[in-house]
Amino acid sequence: MENFIAYNPTKLHFGKNVVRRLGKAVSEYGDKVLLIYGQGSIKRNGIYDTVMQQLVGIGAEVTEFSGIRPNPVIEDVDAAARLGRDKGVDVIVAVGGGSVCDSAKVISVTIPVTHSGWDFYAGTAKPRKAVPLITVLTLAATGSEMNSFAVVQNNRTRQKLGWGHELLHPRQSFLDPQYTFTVPRDYTAYGIADLIAHCLEAFFGEGDAPLSDKFVYAIIHEAVENGKPLLENPRDYELRARIMYAATEALNTMTFNGRRSGDWGVHDIGHVLSLLYDIPHGASLSLVYPAWFKFYKNKIPARIAELGRHVFGVDGPEQTIDAFESFFKSIECPVRLSELGIGKDKKEEIIEVMALNEVSGEHHRIPPEAYPELVELFL
Amino acid sequence: MENFIAYNPTKLHFGKNVVRRLGKAVSEYGDKVLLIYGQGSIKRNGIYDTVMQQLVGIGAEVTEFSGIRPNPVIEDVDAAARLGRDKGVDVIVAVGGGSVCDSAKVISVTIPVTHSGWDFYAGTAKPRKAVPLITVLTLAATGSEMNSFAVVQNNRTRQKLGWGHELLHPRQSFLDPQYTFTVPRDYTAYGIADLIAHCLEAFFGEGDAPLSDKFVYAIIHEAVENGKPLLENPRDYELRARIMYAATEALNTMTFNGRRSGDWGVHDIGHVLSLLYDIPHGASLSLVYPAWFKFYKNKIPARIAELGRHVFGVDGPEQTIDAFESFFKSIECPVRLSELGIGKDKKEEIIEVMALNEVSGEHHRIPPEAYPELVELFL
Repeated sequence: MENFIAYNPTKLHFGKNVVRRLGKAVSEYGDKVLLIYGQGSIKRNGIYDTVMQQLVGIGAEVTEFSGIRPNPVIEDVDAAARLGRDKGVDVIVAVGGGSVCDSAKVISVTIPVTHSGWDFYAGTAKPRKAVPLITVLTLAATGSEMNSFAVVQNNRTRQKLGWGHELLHPRQSFLDPQYTFTVPRDYTAYGIADLIAHCLEAFFGEGDAPLSDKFVYAIIHEAVENGKPLLENPRDYELRARIMYAATEALNTMTFNGRRSGDWGVHDIGHVLSLLYDIPHGASLSLVYPAWFKFYKNKIPARIAELGRHVFGVDGPEQTIDAFESFFKSIECPVRLSELGIGKDKKEEIIEVMALNEVSGEHHRIPPEAYPELVELFL
Repeated sequence: MENFIAYNPTKLHFGKNVVRRLGKAVSEYGDKVLLIYGQGSIKRNGIYDTVMQQLVGIGAEVTEFSGIRPNPVIEDVDAAARLGRDKGVDVIVAVGGGSVCDSAKVISVTIPVTHSGWDFYAGTAKPRKAVPLITVLTLAATGSEMNSFAVVQNNRTRQKLGWGHELLHPRQSFLDPQYTFTVPRDYTAYGIADLIAHCLEAFFGEGDAPLSDKFVYAIIHEAVENGKPLLENPRDYELRARIMYAATEALNTMTFNGRRSGDWGVHDIGHVLSLLYDIPHGASLSLVYPAWFKFYKNKIPARIAELGRHVFGVDGPEQTIDAFESFFKSIECPVRLSELGIGKDKKEEIIEVMALNEVSGEHHRIPPEAYPELVELFL
């Protein structure tokens, strides 16, 4: 086991109608609220009204910033930060999925400064303080609600990068599985692919961390057990709850404890595909992971087989890869780019932008000269 | 799944020589330090010197309170709190195992008040603030380093009670597995029994929480896999690390998420045995759990069997009970009170003090009229 620091101060409120406690939570930090959300689905499903009722109930002065895109961009982050700065907000309430939470995190550390939030990604600035952030989650996928990471896209530089900092932890997060009842079938499945990918990025990191491995098996097993039943019963509270909680645990860093690093190569490739073709994040992962497994099959057969044995009860690396591919197909997630109508003619473009984003992974490296071989496996 | 709040703000520093960062951590809270430890083993093994070096390095003014007993008593807590109050300390540093950590937690909320810390246990007072607490762990067992619970004994009222409050979380905890190299064979084993018991108290609580169940299997599996090897190789860093980390995860509340309650009946009986005969906490648990299993075998056979299937790969409740009993024996933990030289003539006394402590459990109740049957099973 490698040395590690385990630190996760986010207070998570999980369950039916927990948003009833939102107003009280917000009032711990002040009454000038920056409310951030996406493209308006929360107005259609009633979540906006519930949240506003809580904020009105504490007499909050609410400034809204909406329109955060599924693959969030830095322009929105900077615009929201300017607004929050101008209004002198005390607290941010973010209502949405991973893109809204991630954007809100970067907004929370950009409000106190005068430069672009992208400077944190470029490494030319470090955050010193954050406006307290509370999230209300509406999509089970990224785990952003209980970690200190945020992914943002910069269309100008053609980069989509992840960044982590202790200050990015939400202070509190509210997770009501009922809020995910109306998530469409495809995004429900992509969320499951995302949470499984997070577990895999930990599992294939560097360093022996046997208990963290066992947590990985537990969480992937939970996802596999409930994934297909949930697609068939999208308004089943227990199934929604089990997937939502699994997604949180999949990336609250517990699965990384005792490792020197994770291995984010697949995520990095996924980001490139999202950047180029606006592919939903989870879908980009279900299609790259099987290819990555095949690429690494002969290099780390024992590790891949160990995973399959514990999650699917199968024996051998081939069988493990088949099991993951079959599972992704069973929940209607793509495992080839062609399924999304993107042809083999894009190969060079993908390789070019992978190089621009310096895709490599951390432990099991993907050298640039191997890009063509790996890309070919998911075209 | 039941509604739950997940909140654990303790920052855990885990690994080789992490105590090198202790001075810096302490200085975040001030320089007047109350140093709490037990009966002096830390002076013999050099940990005291290392800690003092860190405190001297930041120019701290250190007040010491030592002599905390393995089964800690409220008189010591109150005396240490008076000392800390008189000295106006900014921060507490607790160096030891669960008894030292637990005592320090209660001291941290008793310093700001003028009454006894026992009033929190009696329910006649509620804490409003806590002096920041940093722990340096020297024994893998109780999980106290990363949770908000504390157990203290009151010899006058013949009670040994557990109590939890958000303010009891240590701010930071330092866990160097090397610090447990010199823990004697018997206490090493008792720590393993304790961590397994914590998982079981979650597992047999009320409410379906399938992912938390899977975490329970993972942690117990880790303990079972490494328990005997560790007794044979007490200075093996990896084995010490794996047990130390498993003990932390076993009671940092992760295994309780999604349950309405845990079930602390066995712990409560264990406390009675410790109170009466000064039995080490972990030993009291290894001897009561098999009895509790036998007592409940016909009432919840499927649940007991499920546990055995996932942890030991055995089939059936009898086989599960045998597997746990065999494992405890294999690490030389007692499974009968007679092994500790305590005879059957104590039966009435045990029953009397169980009644006084209102032992019942939370989910699978142990009614007073069933005490004789249950006690008979571990005599």
